[in-house]
Amino acid sequence: MATAKEEEALPLVLVHRIPNFDFPFKHRLQAQFRLLDPLDSVLPESTHSFISCHAASVRVLLCVDPTPISRHLLSLLPSLQLIVCSSAGVDHVDLIECRRRSIAVTNAGKAFSPDVADLAVGLLIDVLRRVSAGDRYVRAGLWARNGEYPVGFKLGGKRVGIVGLGSIGGEIAKRLESFGCAIAYNSRRKKPSVPFPWYKAVYDLAINSDVLIVCCALTEETRHIVNKDVMVALGKEGVIINVGRGALIDEKELVQLLVRGELGGAGLDVFENEPDVPEELFSLNNVVLSPHCAVTTPECFDALEELITANLKAFFSSKPLLSVVEFD
Amino acid sequence: MATAKEEEALPLVLVHRIPNFDFPFKHRLQAQFRLLDPLDSVLPESTHSFISCHAASVRVLLCVDPTPISRHLLSLLPSLQLIVCSSAGVDHVDLIECRRRSIAVTNAGKAFSPDVADLAVGLLIDVLRRVSAGDRYVRAGLWARNGEYPVGFKLGGKRVGIVGLGSIGGEIAKRLESFGCAIAYNSRRKKPSVPFPWYKAVYDLAINSDVLIVCCALTEETRHIVNKDVMVALGKEGVIINVGRGALIDEKELVQLLVRGELGGAGLDVFENEPDVPEELFSLNNVVLSPHCAVTTPECFDALEELITANLKAFFSSKPLLSVVEFD
Repeated sequence: MATAKEEEALPLVLVHRIPNFDFPFKHRLQAQFRLLDPLDSVLPESTHSFISCHAASVRVLLCVDPTPISRHLLSLLPSLQLIVCSSAGVDHVDLIECRRRSIAVTNAGKAFSPDVADLAVGLLIDVLRRVSAGDRYVRAGLWARNGEYPVGFKLGGKRVGIVGLGSIGGEIAKRLESFGCAIAYNSRRKKPSVPFPWYKAVYDLAINSDVLIVCCALTEETRHIVNKDVMVALGKEGVIINVGRGALIDEKELVQLLVRGELGGAGLDVFENEPDVPEELFSLNNVVLSPHCAVTTPECFDALEELITANLKAFFSSKPLLSVVEFD
Repeated sequence: MATAKEEEALPLVLVHRIPNFDFPFKHRLQAQFRLLDPLDSVLPESTHSFISCHAASVRVLLCVDPTPISRHLLSLLPSLQLIVCSSAGVDHVDLIECRRRSIAVTNAGKAFSPDVADLAVGLLIDVLRRVSAGDRYVRAGLWARNGEYPVGFKLGGKRVGIVGLGSIGGEIAKRLESFGCAIAYNSRRKKPSVPFPWYKAVYDLAINSDVLIVCCALTEETRHIVNKDVMVALGKEGVIINVGRGALIDEKELVQLLVRGELGGAGLDVFENEPDVPEELFSLNNVVLSPHCAVTTPECFDALEELITANLKAFFSSKPLLSVVEFD
């Protein structure tokens, strides 16, 4: 245990989290950083009053899970230079204000990418080959009673369009190539180092794909990036996988198309109003519903701790940050 | 439509199948081969009497699905030189008698391998990341009521032991390498062209693996190749995937270990007494049950038709067969 004086000497990091967000590696971080966590305070003071009290000296904010970071909160921290986020998406941070004030933001996508990619591939195989639906069929005792389960669809040869080829999209592409899928992608700009065909518009990507995998960041520009037109372009046998954020898809339209049989299937780890999931989906066999668990494996939390620690150390020793969010 | 005379001139192929096994591409095969199918016969004669009537001239038998081919049946066909099987496994054929009489046997593993490998990977991701169980959780409305679903396990870094590195095992290895798994295998002989560690004994493979994927052929030697000792060696967090045949695993022991929590999980597409599945498994969340559908995609049937046609053509034009089963 560090003495009070030793603790004083550690670099100061303000923790920002709503009460039900916890981070299990907090005590290990405390060996290296002086963590100011308003939720540790025994006084009945509000988060904001706690923050105000320490505000002048705080250069780094550690944001746990998607705890909102508003322009108002940022205005209380005049010395802030860095926000270290423990999430992959950073749509809960006012990035416009961060850019204006030159506050750097790091995310944890790198720690999560392999796990998210694994789940995306798992959901895709599940939808195409009807794994969860087949499991239900067996558990209901229908195999012995009704005979063979209807056939699914082959993964090999499918044209897979990836919406957002960041570190998650890249990991997905690497995996699906080994299954013999043809990869294409959509992103704001063509990536010179990537061999796959690029489509400037998601609509054009959808027209040329059998499967859309949505894994881009949620911003004002990408909200409902997969709208009704895109889904209709994907076609009646088209499959949508979403491991990004629920609001990337117009969920109301998605549900309608699925219910009417105008879309082939969907594998969804995220929803617009989590944990509420549209009940119309519960009876569909061509849909796999996952309770936002793309990034919840123990190994993933280890990688997260490592990345957060590395970003904090880099900042305090004036070295390059490891996972900076690009503003544009 | 060929005239009767033209039809007479086509190479003769005897079809062997039990009544509920059908092959949808039969009419296309009939354009190239004269198919003798006892089930087409309008007379109430038995399969055996039908076969006897044509027996002397038959050189090729097309065996649909796992219709049993016994020593007795073979004794009725003195001129038989080739059995073309429409299945991947050939445990329904008396291979000892075939070897003795130098009857070649072809299987359809090559047509099925990619699909079987896809399902094996899908089942593995499903068990580790609890996809089907998570889907049940959401559909039951428990996400909103009970909160986050328990975390799963990461696929990357897992040591995967493949039991039987034939064409299916090879396809599985190729896929799992892209997820960052460490592959090892067991087979009768070490394969010189394969870079993965080889274990002569399945037990030793299990000791050194987190996951066992069972995809070898079922023979007298491989029946219950995954016995209690092997499963105990795999350990309490070990996962077993079976896309081979049910009897490759001692199912009774498997069920006991799973029920007692002495095995981490299982993804099973095959069972010892299909379509009967041990009901003790129905309530387990670490188990994924699939109604033997590893090879049922439309694309898979196309590949099957192509392979069967190619083997038949090769035989009748004295060219090398495409997928010969090796006896040993």
